[in-house]
Amino acid sequence: MTKVRVHNFTMSLDGFVAGPLQDIDHPLGVRGEQLHEWAFATRTFRDMHEMHGGEVSIDDEIAAAARQNVGAHIIGRNMFGPIRGDWPDEAWTGWWGEDPPYHHPVFVLTHHARPSLEMQGGTIFHFVTDGIESALDRARDAAGSSDVMIGGGASTVRQFLAAGLIDEMHVAVVPVLLGDGERLFGGLPDIAEQYRFEPVIGSDAAAHFQLRRN
Amino acid sequence: MTKVRVHNFTMSLDGFVAGPLQDIDHPLGVRGEQLHEWAFATRTFRDMHEMHGGEVSIDDEIAAAARQNVGAHIIGRNMFGPIRGDWPDEAWTGWWGEDPPYHHPVFVLTHHARPSLEMQGGTIFHFVTDGIESALDRARDAAGSSDVMIGGGASTVRQFLAAGLIDEMHVAVVPVLLGDGERLFGGLPDIAEQYRFEPVIGSDAAAHFQLRRN
Repeated sequence: MTKVRVHNFTMSLDGFVAGPLQDIDHPLGVRGEQLHEWAFATRTFRDMHEMHGGEVSIDDEIAAAARQNVGAHIIGRNMFGPIRGDWPDEAWTGWWGEDPPYHHPVFVLTHHARPSLEMQGGTIFHFVTDGIESALDRARDAAGSSDVMIGGGASTVRQFLAAGLIDEMHVAVVPVLLGDGERLFGGLPDIAEQYRFEPVIGSDAAAHFQLRRN
Repeated sequence: MTKVRVHNFTMSLDGFVAGPLQDIDHPLGVRGEQLHEWAFATRTFRDMHEMHGGEVSIDDEIAAAARQNVGAHIIGRNMFGPIRGDWPDEAWTGWWGEDPPYHHPVFVLTHHARPSLEMQGGTIFHFVTDGIESALDRARDAAGSSDVMIGGGASTVRQFLAAGLIDEMHVAVVPVLLGDGERLFGGLPDIAEQYRFEPVIGSDAAAHFQLRRN
């Protein structure tokens, strides 16, 4: 049975997964990039983005798990780009350049239809306008015997959590206070009994919580 | 310079420091006792409450830090007892029996005056009706060269955080989802730049975050 997974979802100690005042210059909100310092430091992250170096550490081991056995991604439209409303044209092809780091089909949740977009390296973006369950059906078909990753952002993960569709989730809590911003949790009263946890894993830079659906 | 400290303040992964539906039978809210399993397992906690056994672990070491160099506590009224409004009489003397585990002056924030209450073992409860800064002045005087501990609950800690009065804080995040309840953080936009963190310490049962005011 293939799974629906979330990995490397990072939250400040005060519960925010993006800072306040998100805009095109601050896609993670003010101070939001502080959330991801633990990941930026890992070899896995740096390899994915064709940078040199990076630490081989417990953080790296956990970051690397996100790459194993994933056959398709589902992401929200804001993860794909800053454009809101109708697509003015087809010039925007994502934040990642010609060869995005996915290398498999990526289903983008949107209210605005657009033809699929084939990139280099095996990434193809499909734009899904009929909701999360349809996106999941299509992603499962595309992934075959591999798993489906819910890539974010927060509102996409929240929709899948609220629908009881996430099998495994990794949340990293980091020693950062953002004061305000976008929350992952809250308004999800039914999740209390749905998951069991692996033992907590802590590095200097993050505490890793791994949840599995009961 | 003496400090104002918070220790062993425990939060679920989804950000709640007490479960929903707090009442006299569930002073920590529904499922709220799950938050404190890491602390209940420590020798320090069990010694404080005159129980045998308990683990000597990194959790225990961190729990024990809360007992060092504390000369006075400040707590909210709900930490002292379940009575709301005027005191009907002086029969209620706290949740802890004749010999509470404080052994020094404890200042209880309330809107309802009441004479001080001297218990066995050095604990004396003073009831403060003129606000947190007055309580802090009195607690500092009582503590002398020792520190003042803000004992909780959440709304008391929030008031001191909002006023910029907490010097050191230890928050334990635990592998529990409560789904709903009372938050510690949120609505405190100014705290983002106020604290620096020690490296995260993780055990199987909790992730410990230690903050110091800049």
